[in-house]
Formats: sequence, structure tokens, C-alpha cells
Amino acid sequence: MEDCITIEGGATAPKGFKASGICAGIKVGALDLALLVSETPAVVAGCFTTNAVQAAPVNLCKTVLASGKASAVVVNSGCANACTGSAGRVAATEMGTATAVALGLPAGDVFVCSTGTIGKPLPLEKICTALPEAVAALSTDGGGQAAKAIMTTDTVDKQMAVSVQIGDTTICVGGMAKGSGMIEPNMATMLAFLTTDAAVCAESLQSCLSAVVAKTFNRISVDGDQSTNDTVLILANGRSGCSVLDHTHPDWGRFVDAVFTVSLALAKKIVKDGEGATKFITITVAGAVTDADANVAAKAIANSLLCKTAWFGEDPNWGRVIAAVGYSGAQVDPDLIDIAFGDVVAVKCGQMADDVSFSMLEAVFAKKAFEIGVDLNLGDGIETVYTCDCSYEYVKINAEYMT
Amino acid sequence: MEDCITIEGGATAPKGFKASGICAGIKVGALDLALLVSETPAVVAGCFTTNAVQAAPVNLCKTVLASGKASAVVVNSGCANACTGSAGRVAATEMGTATAVALGLPAGDVFVCSTGTIGKPLPLEKICTALPEAVAALSTDGGGQAAKAIMTTDTVDKQMAVSVQIGDTTICVGGMAKGSGMIEPNMATMLAFLTTDAAVCAESLQSCLSAVVAKTFNRISVDGDQSTNDTVLILANGRSGCSVLDHTHPDWGRFVDAVFTVSLALAKKIVKDGEGATKFITITVAGAVTDADANVAAKAIANSLLCKTAWFGEDPNWGRVIAAVGYSGAQVDPDLIDIAFGDVVAVKCGQMADDVSFSMLEAVFAKKAFEIGVDLNLGDGIETVYTCDCSYEYVKINAEYMT
Repeated sequence: MEDCITIEGGATAPKGFKASGICAGIKVGALDLALLVSETPAVVAGCFTTNAVQAAPVNLCKTVLASGKASAVVVNSGCANACTGSAGRVAATEMGTATAVALGLPAGDVFVCSTGTIGKPLPLEKICTALPEAVAALSTDGGGQAAKAIMTTDTVDKQMAVSVQIGDTTICVGGMAKGSGMIEPNMATMLAFLTTDAAVCAESLQSCLSAVVAKTFNRISVDGDQSTNDTVLILANGRSGCSVLDHTHPDWGRFVDAVFTVSLALAKKIVKDGEGATKFITITVAGAVTDADANVAAKAIANSLLCKTAWFGEDPNWGRVIAAVGYSGAQVDPDLIDIAFGDVVAVKCGQMADDVSFSMLEAVFAKKAFEIGVDLNLGDGIETVYTCDCSYEYVKINAEYMT
Repeated sequence: MEDCITIEGGATAPKGFKASGICAGIKVGALDLALLVSETPAVVAGCFTTNAVQAAPVNLCKTVLASGKASAVVVNSGCANACTGSAGRVAATEMGTATAVALGLPAGDVFVCSTGTIGKPLPLEKICTALPEAVAALSTDGGGQAAKAIMTTDTVDKQMAVSVQIGDTTICVGGMAKGSGMIEPNMATMLAFLTTDAAVCAESLQSCLSAVVAKTFNRISVDGDQSTNDTVLILANGRSGCSVLDHTHPDWGRFVDAVFTVSLALAKKIVKDGEGATKFITITVAGAVTDADANVAAKAIANSLLCKTAWFGEDPNWGRVIAAVGYSGAQVDPDLIDIAFGDVVAVKCGQMADDVSFSMLEAVFAKKAFEIGVDLNLGDGIETVYTCDCSYEYVKINAEYMT
């Protein structure tokens, strides 16, 4: 990863991408319609929510993905177009078709994403009316506006871009994301759109994205609730002029690292912008029998309401952590579990460590960001998960919003 | 269940049981040591936490249970004796032995339970010093004091008793429970002790208890966190003089109903006393392919932080409910899901019902207690789960406690 250089910008940092973000009137007085367009058809890959209840645009994206190529993504915020039945499916298709027409593209070349209120009909007319303005506003500097237009309860827009050498060519990977919990008002959505000017074979691009998503966007948790709309897409347009990459290419690892670096940075930004979050917690479970065991144990800690409220209260409460590990389903031997907060070992062999003091732990918990390290001492399985605390503000945001 | 008559009292309502609750000095100025004793050895059954990290007394209880008979339960609050290693195991055994000696019982005839702070050594000396006082205080009216002595963050003690006719004999089932979340400070514990003066064969008593626990104590959720100490015990001493009951007895169903009625009432009291709870929610998922599917879907709703905060905010947010069903893992067809709040059908075939108004739903959510009914319309699987909302107060209780 030391080969990636962070650069300015986001989804329009790679060559040949334009974007825009405008007000279509879906939300009141806020950007709510984003376009992201590749000047030439791009090889695409995607990952989607595994929720059995999936929004209409998610299904449409899967159809577009199956065609292997696409040139544009249209995204609205303020309405998730989820639980809207056949009318919702028709509306998603029409949103894609209208965007294709406005861009002069073949129908079916456009990904459609929606985020916001569930169960309400998509305001298709407002979107269609606003599309010409969105097309006119497209710019190679438009990534920032687009990143703002996909926000719901996010308090900051989320962008990231890196460059990396592939042979003699400098290629670029950029991206934008949104998400800060699952509200606005029913659930928000984790959306991320990655771009690259590398040329990549479709199959390898999909394996790369799936592997990266598993270690980044699927390793974060704000509240444990999974949306109906979660979508991650990547478009590779080859405009850097590099040779076509696949998993056999000597520099394939560098490309995957670049996608990973951008994805992890965006994923962490989502957690840091978690609803009401005051702490950023990195949880690593090591010594598990399998990586999958390490993951379920880390996720159990990350999603434990008791752990999250203790972090908010800066209470160095290790009992809640070991209890979460115990009920996670991961294979454990209680007498072998070690737990450290930052550099301070709090638990050794399942009991409070002899030389740990309350003030040492308090100093760790007072930080804005700290690490929790659990060693199950059973095997080589290891995973890291990123999460935040649960504050009064989280309850307030999610209780006071009126549907 | 119409045959059960609710009577006064709790664990000492059945014949031949005495109890006491005293201050042993484990907590400051509160009852913290409870004894429950059967005048004659009782047939016993038990159910325990499935957390892989189990407190020392849980393991000891399993050993006592294996012997098939017991005469007493000793319980301390203020210290969970969990994550205390071999010293904790020795302390639990000594607590049982000291209690047996004080009661003039054979060693191994005493169940030992602890609830409270995790990771701290059991104050065995305080307990041993206080045991003679606890024995002296034993009384057939002592159920109430014992119910108070097992409390941690509970705000009310929890007792219930019923009588039912078995042939010509009136038998009685009573009980007490504690639990209101998993804190104080690291986790609380759900403990329940049931008593009956019926004579019951051991094997049938265990099947009865396991079946009842599955539908009562295992169908409640305050915060989704599972303790290291959860224990449910039943002692059947036969003092009513009824004939020995087993599952082939014509009145077996009446006995099971009595145990079920007491258990469900205690389980509901725990939810109603949930930390910071302002709402009592009954969630029934019907029409699932299997009962197990109905259960996971209902539990997903009950444990969704987004649902719980919406209930607190009295926000009739059905999107969060359908999303939780979608990610629960239960088999669903999104286009077949119906959801009702109280008598108001909010969702029909996966979409907002045509004739539902916001004010109709608001009226349901304004109530202190209401039902959420989900019909998956796929099969005959059905389960009911009881839960509460998540309020500022929950976060406050769990954040502000200092370990």
C-alpha cells in the first residue's frame, strides 16, 4: 500500500470521468441528484445488499451489471424507492432510461441508485425535469458536488482518490460514498461509487471489488442494521492508457491495493460520520480458529449496545467485550482470551490482568479513537472491524425524526 | 391456561418452601444475599446461558443438576463471579458448601447463583459471615425479601404464583426473577427460580422447563446482549401430596400451563423493567415457513436499534421493521409481507397499505404497550417475542455507570 499516493478529489480524479450534483427539489433546499459519467463505456463491477428486501434500483443495477459495461450512474437522495412494488420498479427503469436519453447513451447503460425515505413513491417527474440541468453541470471537477448530492443524514461529504504506477503508466482510483446510519427516516443506505482510468478485465474487476468490499465496506458497522439499498459500484474506463489489467498482471496487486486504499478510507469516513458518534473504534480479533470466527467475534463486539454505550461513557468495561465474544458464536476457550485496549492489556487468560490499573484504561477510553485487540489464542484467524459508539445523540436522531 | 388461578406471593407460595433475603454487605445498604430452601429434597430441572463464557456458579449449578435432587438455592447480587478463573470456581464451590453446612444439608445439595459485576473476586467471607443470619431469617413468607435480594439494576422485584387443580389436589407453582438489561456494571443476569409443591418425575420436569423457557425467558430481549450467568431453575418438592406427575399424566398439560403462566409473567416483568424502557412491545411473526424462521425475524425486529429508537420516539416507522425482517435470515418474499401495528395494517404486500393514515398509526405508537404483527404469508410458522424501546435513559444508565 506504500505505493499508493493520496491525491486531491474523488470520483472525478481519474481521467475521463465527469460528475455533477444539483437540486432536483426532492429534498428541501439541498443537493439531491447526482450524475457520474465516463466519457467512454467502462468495464463495471458491483456489490449489493444481501437484505432479502431489496429496493427497486438495486435490482435494476444488477441487470445493468450483467451487461458488463456501463457509462453512467444516476443517484437521487431523499427517497429510497424501496418497498414501492411494481410502480417502484417501473420508476427506477424510467429514471435510468431518461438519464440515458439526456446523456445520448444507449438505454441500459446507466446504473440507478436511490437513498432516503423508504416506502414513498419516487418523485420521477422532478428527477426527469432536473436531468438536463444535471447533464449541463457535468464537469471533471464535479466529484465534490456529486458527493454532496448523495448525502442523507451525513454531516460531511466523503471522497478519496489515489494514484499508483502500473508499469510506465500512472493510473488513478477515486470514489465517493455516503452513509452514517440507517435513517432518513427509515433507513439510510451505504452507497459507494468508485472510478478508475485503468483498463481492467471485467471478471478480475469483479473479484477485486468483492474482495475489497469484504475487507472494507463489509467491516464497518454503525448500528448493525442493514439497508435495502446498499450498493458499491466501480467503473473502469481505461483512459489512463495502461495495458489491460487482470489478476495475472505483475502489477495486479498494486491495482487492488489502490482500490482497497480508497475503499477503506471511504468506509472509515462513514464510521467517523456515524450518527451521533463521538468515538472511532478499531476492533481486531486475532488467534481465532478461522478468519470467519474472528469476524463474527469482532462484529459481535462492534454491534453490542452495551459495549457501544460504555465507549460513549468512557467506561473501560471489559466484561461487556468478553461477554460479546462469548455469545458471538465464534469458537472460544474462555480461559485463553486476552483483551487489550490500546496498548494496555486489560484481560489475560480470561481474567483481569494483574498489572492493569483503572487509570491506565481510562486514559485509553478518553481518546477520540482507540483500538480494541482481542486474542483468542486458538489459531491464525484474524479480522478487523471499524465501528463507533452509541450516544444520546444517536437515540435523539433516530427517535425524533418523524416519518 | 384458564385453569390457572393467580395467587399472592412468589417462590414461597407453594407448600414446603422458605426463603430469606438479607444484607451481606456485598452491595452498600441493599439486600444482596438470598436463600430459597425446600423442607424436603426436591426434584430439579434447569436451563442455562449458552454464552461460551460462563460464570463459575453456572458450571456448579450444572453439576448439582446432574445429581437430580437439591434442597436449596443460594444467590448473591453485587458480584457475578464471572471471568474469575480457578479462584472463582473454588469460591463458588465454597459458597455452596458453606450454605449446605449452615442448613445442615449434604454438600452438593445447593444451587449457587451470582449476579452483578463481572471480573471481580467473589466476597466469600462476607457471604459466609452472613449465612447464619440468612438461615435464621428463612420464612414461608420470605419470597418477597428473597426477590428483592437478587435484584441488581431492577427497579422492582418480580414475583408470580398460580394454583391449579391436579386431580383432587390443588398444587401451586411460584417463582421470582431478576434482570433488566445486562449491566451492573458489565452485564446483569437473567435469573429465575421457580418452585412447585407438585411431585414431578425429573425427566418430565426438565422437558417441561426447557419447553417453557424456550417460549418465555428465551422470547424476551432488552438489548440483545446475552449474559454469562443466565440461569432458570425449578424445584418440585411434592409437598402438595399430589400423585407423581409425568408427561403421560392426564393433567400434565395443566401443570405445564401453570409453569408457563408463571414464567411468562416473570419474563414480561423483566421486559417492563428493562433499563430505561418506556414501551412494552409484543412482536408476533406469523406465516413463516418454520417457527424458527418466525423467531429469527421477530428477534431481528426486537433487537434492531433503529426500531427500538423509533418506538421510543413514537415514530410509526414501518420501513425499519420490514428492513429488519429482510436481513434477519428468515425466508421471505418481500412482495408478500404484511405488517400491522395494533389493529392498524400499515403494510400490505410489501408496500404501504392504501387506507392507512399517519394519525391512525400515531395513535397506536402513543400507547405504553402495543403489538406489532408481521405476516410473511408463506407458511404456518409463528412466534411471539417481547421487548422494549431504547431511550436516552438506556444510554445514560449504560454509559454513566463507572466500572
